[in-house]
Amino acid sequence: MVEIIRREEIERILPRLDLLDIIEQGFVAYSRGEVTVPPPGELLFDDPPGDMHIKYGYIHGDDFYVIKVASGFYRNPELGLSSSQGLMLLFDRRTGVLLAVLLDEGRLTDVRTAAAGAVVARRLATRAADSIGIVGAGIQGRLQLLHLLPVTEATRVLIWAPDEAEFLGYREFFAMLGGAPELKFTCDVSDITRSCNLIVTATPSKTPLLKAAEIQPGTHITAIGADTPQKTELEPELLARADIVVVDSLAQSESRGEVFRAVQAGAIRRNTVLELGKVLENPQLGRQHDDQITVADLTGVAVQDIQIAKAVYRERASLKE
Amino acid sequence: MVEIIRREEIERILPRLDLLDIIEQGFVAYSRGEVTVPPPGELLFDDPPGDMHIKYGYIHGDDFYVIKVASGFYRNPELGLSSSQGLMLLFDRRTGVLLAVLLDEGRLTDVRTAAAGAVVARRLATRAADSIGIVGAGIQGRLQLLHLLPVTEATRVLIWAPDEAEFLGYREFFAMLGGAPELKFTCDVSDITRSCNLIVTATPSKTPLLKAAEIQPGTHITAIGADTPQKTELEPELLARADIVVVDSLAQSESRGEVFRAVQAGAIRRNTVLELGKVLENPQLGRQHDDQITVADLTGVAVQDIQIAKAVYRERASLKE
Repeated sequence: MVEIIRREEIERILPRLDLLDIIEQGFVAYSRGEVTVPPPGELLFDDPPGDMHIKYGYIHGDDFYVIKVASGFYRNPELGLSSSQGLMLLFDRRTGVLLAVLLDEGRLTDVRTAAAGAVVARRLATRAADSIGIVGAGIQGRLQLLHLLPVTEATRVLIWAPDEAEFLGYREFFAMLGGAPELKFTCDVSDITRSCNLIVTATPSKTPLLKAAEIQPGTHITAIGADTPQKTELEPELLARADIVVVDSLAQSESRGEVFRAVQAGAIRRNTVLELGKVLENPQLGRQHDDQITVADLTGVAVQDIQIAKAVYRERASLKE
Repeated sequence: MVEIIRREEIERILPRLDLLDIIEQGFVAYSRGEVTVPPPGELLFDDPPGDMHIKYGYIHGDDFYVIKVASGFYRNPELGLSSSQGLMLLFDRRTGVLLAVLLDEGRLTDVRTAAAGAVVARRLATRAADSIGIVGAGIQGRLQLLHLLPVTEATRVLIWAPDEAEFLGYREFFAMLGGAPELKFTCDVSDITRSCNLIVTATPSKTPLLKAAEIQPGTHITAIGADTPQKTELEPELLARADIVVVDSLAQSESRGEVFRAVQAGAIRRNTVLELGKVLENPQLGRQHDDQITVADLTGVAVQDIQIAKAVYRERASLKE
């Protein structure tokens, strides 16, 4: 009998998961070549503008395969709807029987993306990282900080937003959760690049926001926003200045994200880029001392969807036992 | 709020639908170029052997897009499970909001495939078609006859099955439904080709079953079984002998089905083949007199899935009003 898992139930299950370990294991399996993830399916719409993506696959030897449907319709907020919509489907890998429909409305994609940021920071940020800068005050900018706080010793958090109203929404989000550190606002990205040693960018920008010359030694930067060929948040020279550049998927970095743009611009060579799963598995590939600059460029991989869908399904089953 | 529509409810709705018209309209829209259906997504498994396909798309100007997941795991019957599994998802085309999850377990695919056979027979079989031959006694062989009976004047039905036990299962299926004509059994396909004027083939055969020389003038043949490059049920020469050859999708006939095989064998030229939606829209492209031999080669098109999912969803909504 197929399980229908609704959003409210998913919300109750999420805090019970060791999300960072789950996502980390997914990246490791992916970089070992143990995951089959075909090219995503896609529908593009003009009127109103929107796109729909189907990501799917399975980890070899695993009990499941997973299909995720995610869409972005950017005028939805005018109708009081989230621009992100979607669901995940979990199947028995040996029979094709549908086991679970996860009606997450895009929530699990948001969370698995945020968890990846924390997985990266845990491995690449300096242990002395005490000053977090978040560029972008939307849902992903919020979730990135939410997942970073438990894995860092941050005493100072600076938020860039295009205007103060957006920042107030950001602060309100954390005030409602309680227990967050004091959040400071800036509308000048340079304030963040000059003063923070752990920076996450989560905007839909199509022009670079972070300037190479302003980055301080010892900084780690995770770039989340650029998931298409057009989007970019980092100057190409910033990747050239970095001691270590990591991507979640070498294959995807050939067609999208910061590494794609920096290689195209001639700022870096493709063969200097490392894949995240390899770095997670071999710490000697990661940060070696506190003065290094590190950059992680995340475009999102279906193995994250597979891992989080499985984890929600299994945790729910264990709660029912 | 997303609607979860379970199998039992789908079964109650199906008899209320004008399925043939719904499927016919889909083929017409498809052949007019009014349907976006990207290449299917696919996962292939070895152990146990199985495959999973994702078909999706939308009709231009329509309110919905549809995603269908269908799998075939051929050892499932050993576990008491159907080899076919799957579901359909219906989304709001303007927002990406998930409207309905149709937990049909592959049933709607079976039905829309059978309905296509009746749509074709209604247009291409002679009005005098009184003798139906079904090659293949599986679920599709059963559903084809079930959907043909209301649109023909059949007084005689001959079923080919590899052995009599399978035929007895077939007869039992119709006995339970009541009101079916007498069914006769043969284990020699030539009995069907020599004596029937409306023939449907629905087997997974990889060698031709119907011989060109045995086909009688005035016969219509619908070939359902061959949906991969390897499968085939008709001798290539049979397509050469036919006065009219129709496919549901010219694009798909370039890589699978009887037309693909006959073109490859040099028996027919691609430019003599017509697309079903065009024939349905322009009767002068179809059968012109009772002595013609006609062949329809159906490999299945996502527009059928779109149409049947929409119809179930709308009928359910109207029942609730």
